[in-house]
Amino acid sequence: MELEQLIQIPQLDATAMAQARARQDQLTKPQGSLGRLEELSVQIAGITGNPRPSLQDKVILTMAGDHGVVAQGVSAFPQEVTPQMVANFLHGGAAINVLARQVGARVVVVDMGVAVDMSGFEGLIIKKVGFGTNDFTQGPAMTPEQTVQAILAGAEVVTAELERGLDILGTGEMGIGNTTPATAIAAVLTGKDPGEITGPGTGLDAEGVRRKAEVIRRGIALNQPRTEDALDVLSKVGGFEIAGLVGAMLAAAHYRRPVVVDGFISTAAAMIAQALAPDLHPYLIAAHRSQEQGHDAMLAWLELEPLLDLRLRLGEGTGAALAMGLADAACKVLNEMATFAEAAVAGKQ
Amino acid sequence: MELEQLIQIPQLDATAMAQARARQDQLTKPQGSLGRLEELSVQIAGITGNPRPSLQDKVILTMAGDHGVVAQGVSAFPQEVTPQMVANFLHGGAAINVLARQVGARVVVVDMGVAVDMSGFEGLIIKKVGFGTNDFTQGPAMTPEQTVQAILAGAEVVTAELERGLDILGTGEMGIGNTTPATAIAAVLTGKDPGEITGPGTGLDAEGVRRKAEVIRRGIALNQPRTEDALDVLSKVGGFEIAGLVGAMLAAAHYRRPVVVDGFISTAAAMIAQALAPDLHPYLIAAHRSQEQGHDAMLAWLELEPLLDLRLRLGEGTGAALAMGLADAACKVLNEMATFAEAAVAGKQ
Repeated sequence: MELEQLIQIPQLDATAMAQARARQDQLTKPQGSLGRLEELSVQIAGITGNPRPSLQDKVILTMAGDHGVVAQGVSAFPQEVTPQMVANFLHGGAAINVLARQVGARVVVVDMGVAVDMSGFEGLIIKKVGFGTNDFTQGPAMTPEQTVQAILAGAEVVTAELERGLDILGTGEMGIGNTTPATAIAAVLTGKDPGEITGPGTGLDAEGVRRKAEVIRRGIALNQPRTEDALDVLSKVGGFEIAGLVGAMLAAAHYRRPVVVDGFISTAAAMIAQALAPDLHPYLIAAHRSQEQGHDAMLAWLELEPLLDLRLRLGEGTGAALAMGLADAACKVLNEMATFAEAAVAGKQ
Repeated sequence: MELEQLIQIPQLDATAMAQARARQDQLTKPQGSLGRLEELSVQIAGITGNPRPSLQDKVILTMAGDHGVVAQGVSAFPQEVTPQMVANFLHGGAAINVLARQVGARVVVVDMGVAVDMSGFEGLIIKKVGFGTNDFTQGPAMTPEQTVQAILAGAEVVTAELERGLDILGTGEMGIGNTTPATAIAAVLTGKDPGEITGPGTGLDAEGVRRKAEVIRRGIALNQPRTEDALDVLSKVGGFEIAGLVGAMLAAAHYRRPVVVDGFISTAAAMIAQALAPDLHPYLIAAHRSQEQGHDAMLAWLELEPLLDLRLRLGEGTGAALAMGLADAACKVLNEMATFAEAAVAGKQ
């Protein structure tokens, strides 16, 4: 699929939404008393076009990539952790494996641009666009061609997973240093100074955060990304896994699947995807409010209210997995509860 | 068990907590990056005395009772809905059934004081203390003897469920009109005027809320519950299912089980239980912030921060079931994740 097709996102199905709303109002509870769960079920009805949607096949997509900008000392962990954690995902020992298992989701792990060769890792999908991005304090992180290649690769992964069954997509990522490009994207799109929205990532101290903000400021000053051109922003200060997630989100929405956006890095990808495809918005479900400083500003820019606020700051798709459990609960309430008539319960006086 | 024994709550196990904390810090994620999930796992380790606790057997306890004060027009639904919803719980068609199934919890339904005879309903535990409480605008809702009987009955139910397996207790209730006694309890214990903390319950309009607050004010003025005597407060303006939940919470904590407190009514029960047994506090997990006005003040009084904020206002244990899923996730993270050493992942630089 070409990018021009990918950004064609269908409108939500208003009839399915009205039917879901009408059913919610007949279920044995005061109208509206399940709050956001009810809203979520109606949203998913509209997305899928099914007035009683069921989320059988759940996918957490965890995309990995490395970042040249780690040369500037922006992360508390060494770059070798990216492939080590990818191996951990494949062996089932990471947080995302535990949390995905709990909600019955499968974890799909993709090498979008890890800095070392990862061929031979069983179960890993290889869509490597490069061995880490370029250091954006020295020039653009990616070429325009790499950027489009990564977006389309992300879309391809989702298209292939649709064949295996995918009723809901949760996004996730792994990439040492990737709060730096995510913050840079957020700074450009929101117009905020990096100092306002840069946080400690995996654990920088205050001085480290200050240097990281300065690195982001220098990268933006050098590359001059054009705010109104999301591809240019992504290319100059983004990353391979972020671009992959952009394509994955667009493809899921293109095929009428709900997208659960994880934390800080996934939200940066959602901002780019939203800028590319304005009709994407109603397909997005913000999983949680990350503890990473700046996430609030990104959610506000996207006009999304997160479902959870548990002071998470891990990524991988961990918040998305937890929120997927709530989305599943929302659809089960809509599908499985008895109506007032079925249960012979009296209504409001 | 007598009440004096029931309020003996053991201290949390500091060694188990330290071991759980140490393990969390060895798992393949930045320290603390799973936020409240990590805290929850450490809390549950301390409660159970097990450094790697596992929540296999989950119970949602839904206690039902009626309230004489409905004669004052405090509810949008007729009193017959209480037994009708109890039947719905037993048939598996209510929201709590759907949400409990999703997290693998069994729902235990108890008649603490429904206004009609419910013997013959299969699966219902009958601990009926009376056929609805007295209208507290005319005198005390319950006698002191009924109050203690209801508390001990709630404890008995939990003790019996422990035999069947109970690793975590979620509280829930059903009782048309029961936001009124819950608000009265909150008003007495927090010292706030009912006008500040009275909400629409199942759906009163503004005039109805005003009248409900006035009913609560009259009940308090007439009965003069003694703030420093929680049994007196419970007896004069409480209810059978609220008293049952008080006993259930105390028994669960007495036997070192975590207690997930649902919304508005359960929180009123938790306030009474906390006042009776000051050592209860670390056993409590606040499930969610109810949309019902006044819940914030109750949570603040209890010094509890809820896990979820989904604008729920249903009760039954629905929020507790959702939060139990998070508690389960927290323990699974602690148990199932690989350590840095096991996964051969490099640590922080």
